[in-house]
Amino acid sequence: MSWHRKHLLDIESLSAEEITAVLDTAREFKAVGERDIKKVPALQGKTVVNFFVEPSTRTRVSFELSAKRLSADIINFAADASSFKKGETLKDTARNLEALNADIIVIRHKAAGAPHFLARFLNAHVVNAGDGAHEHPTQALLDVFTIREKKGAIAGLNVTILGDILYSRVARSAIWCLRKLGANVTLCGPSTLVPRIFEQMGCRVTHDMDDALAEADVINLLRIQHERQRKTMFPSIGEYASLFGLNRARLAKTKPDALIMHPGPMNRGVEIESEIADGERAVILEQVTNGIAVRMAALYLVNGGKQEDL
Amino acid sequence: MSWHRKHLLDIESLSAEEITAVLDTAREFKAVGERDIKKVPALQGKTVVNFFVEPSTRTRVSFELSAKRLSADIINFAADASSFKKGETLKDTARNLEALNADIIVIRHKAAGAPHFLARFLNAHVVNAGDGAHEHPTQALLDVFTIREKKGAIAGLNVTILGDILYSRVARSAIWCLRKLGANVTLCGPSTLVPRIFEQMGCRVTHDMDDALAEADVINLLRIQHERQRKTMFPSIGEYASLFGLNRARLAKTKPDALIMHPGPMNRGVEIESEIADGERAVILEQVTNGIAVRMAALYLVNGGKQEDL
Amino acid sequence: MSWHRKHLLDIESLSAEEITAVLDTAREFKAVGERDIKKVPALQGKTVVNFFVEPSTRTRVSFELSAKRLSADIINFAADASSFKKGETLKDTARNLEALNADIIVIRHKAAGAPHFLARFLNAHVVNAGDGAHEHPTQALLDVFTIREKKGAIAGLNVTILGDILYSRVARSAIWCLRKLGANVTLCGPSTLVPRIFEQMGCRVTHDMDDALAEADVINLLRIQHERQRKTMFPSIGEYASLFGLNRARLAKTKPDALIMHPGPMNRGVEIESEIADGERAVILEQVTNGIAVRMAALYLVNGGKQEDL
Repeated sequence: MSWHRKHLLDIESLSAEEITAVLDTAREFKAVGERDIKKVPALQGKTVVNFFVEPSTRTRVSFELSAKRLSADIINFAADASSFKKGETLKDTARNLEALNADIIVIRHKAAGAPHFLARFLNAHVVNAGDGAHEHPTQALLDVFTIREKKGAIAGLNVTILGDILYSRVARSAIWCLRKLGANVTLCGPSTLVPRIFEQMGCRVTHDMDDALAEADVINLLRIQHERQRKTMFPSIGEYASLFGLNRARLAKTKPDALIMHPGPMNRGVEIESEIADGERAVILEQVTNGIAVRMAALYLVNGGKQEDL
Repeated sequence: MSWHRKHLLDIESLSAEEITAVLDTAREFKAVGERDIKKVPALQGKTVVNFFVEPSTRTRVSFELSAKRLSADIINFAADASSFKKGETLKDTARNLEALNADIIVIRHKAAGAPHFLARFLNAHVVNAGDGAHEHPTQALLDVFTIREKKGAIAGLNVTILGDILYSRVARSAIWCLRKLGANVTLCGPSTLVPRIFEQMGCRVTHDMDDALAEADVINLLRIQHERQRKTMFPSIGEYASLFGLNRARLAKTKPDALIMHPGPMNRGVEIESEIADGERAVILEQVTNGIAVRMAALYLVNGGKQEDL
Repeated sequence: MSWHRKHLLDIESLSAEEITAVLDTAREFKAVGERDIKKVPALQGKTVVNFFVEPSTRTRVSFELSAKRLSADIINFAADASSFKKGETLKDTARNLEALNADIIVIRHKAAGAPHFLARFLNAHVVNAGDGAHEHPTQALLDVFTIREKKGAIAGLNVTILGDILYSRVARSAIWCLRKLGANVTLCGPSTLVPRIFEQMGCRVTHDMDDALAEADVINLLRIQHERQRKTMFPSIGEYASLFGLNRARLAKTKPDALIMHPGPMNRGVEIESEIADGERAVILEQVTNGIAVRMAALYLVNGGKQEDL
């Protein structure tokens, strides 16, 4: 058991042992979700605040349910980002939430570093639920948890991440997590979205899909956020789908046991062909299920819980 | 005990025995709401998702409280209908909710048939909280529960439903439910809103209020949804009130023990005169109270609960 | 123990003994928030409805958490004020909430007197969470609770309230509460916002900051609601800050042990200089913490709880 941190702010600062501690603890909690009574008293009487300054229904619900399964009291506090014009005001709001005797504050914010900022002055435990284009640590942990469950181990696996890497906190956290656990990471997508600078994180960068997929044990597809209209980044949705979408022809050339992952929500027909999303190799819904287990583990561990007490 | 269904999707497909099973179970749960501690452990550790794609505060709150009184964990998931452009995406969202280990998904959707669509591919139990102009089964069950409580039995009663029948899921579910239990159903309102085709559901259709009210044991007034501006359907609110509103003059000609029902929210002075809404024969607030009991019964039964275990 | 009221509607109608009963009960509940398991079964199985017709995240969250720490089931019901055009409809909505077997209805409404209106026809207990410019009783109680905790007693203290008194329910409740407990209350701010008529409530009114601060034991700063653009009330934010903001120069002339209070959210640099807000004399976050204890006491007492049973 090697978790002694007060917060979960990012993957970058974690050791492989700390990551493994979360994964091992999550394995214990996964069993809770499969029981008839999906509830343990681990955080009975504790207060968790879901402090979401950027809208997110899925991640908010996943943390809410994780807290409830731990028997914590959870409060949703959605703040409009437009009401925060100064750093002090975010600080004041966070301090006000803490003053409610909050034990844990889960924060989603569009500004990179917001959770670290909070952690510097709060006594409450802080869990990062996504900060700007920086990190989304619980997403990376649930991805790696799912891979480990399917493949037994992470070290030595070839993991390919496809899509909008540059602006993706999901990609950034996943890269840190996979590299620390010894996986080989290949990034692929349009050169505007997958610049060579990612080689400095220990990744292989390619813009050739055949090359990216050939040896992959795991294919992680990111969502193309076409609603943000990145007109200068790629010509059109249709062209993206044709050049970088995962279709049956491309899948046929991959290893037969390669896992297909996606953090959701999917654009069927864009980054992934619909049949593949529903196919046997896709573990997309298992990722959602595992998200609860991983978030239960994160809430439990930052609050001082020990795996050996479970 | 004759409930063996996995879902509660509509009244149309239920037998009289199944409807009666819900009513009998609801009677047990009604007592819970009258206790000092309004809570039973029947769904302890179960997860219920309130999946509302069409806004509704009242029905959402009623289901939320019903789940809490059963000790379930409940998550509200309100989705903007505009984010669902394809059937696949509704499917994906529902599957994601299920992947949170949801035991029961309560769905409100503007598209008729959405709950049936979900039930075809989900393992979770599905409860219809209103689908388009199709059905609103728990509303019909709470209406019938209230009538049975007041009148002892349903068979042979004359029930008159007034108002906007054509577009009303409340009316459609009520008609199925009342007919299956042996009531005589009369429909009345403007001919544009109460077409003769409803005779095929075994109802009597009339456009004459005196005729509709004369023999009624129960008068169920639907809400005139004037905010939807059905200009072609009736000339004006004032004219509607004058032709089809329930006022004291009309009430005087009804049976002295006729019940006055309304699913809420009421337009006082339109479909119902204010004094009548507050009068002794109105059971409108009892319908709200009974809604909790009926929804507790629905959640309990679809999840495999047995009335004899209560 | 001198609390026998069914509702908490305002401070104006309370006796000093009743106020003291709430404060004493809150002291017991404050200890709950400091425990490892922040929960007591006092309202187990009771239903509390947070009925907020005017938006408020902070007060809503504070009541929500208070109810949860008492083990009650709580439902948030936020209604858009625009949907209430007639008094009857507010009445109908409140009756509908009560018909859900609600034990306590906590109401926030932009109309002064709305809680009193509800209390006249509901059987449920009503707690005022702020009604227009009229009263905000739990805010006054948490202020007084905090002062008593720091100063030992209220009687004889000099309390200065600064800012927008005229439109402030916080000020109005605070004045009643402090006067009943024997404090000397001084009001200060621009003459447009602090008219002489408040002398009829037993307050001293001055428009001179030096005079207002000189003898103060407690300085309570109200939020300048500049978002409401009261153009005719004071010339500009900058001028307000310069004339009536609490800055270091002014603080230096006050008693060294004067408490600095603010109901939040603060406008740093307007009514309060940032360093003062973070200084040792400020008890602003303690007010937030005490808000939970006071609201737990309010919910507990109106529901018939006795301090001696704690």
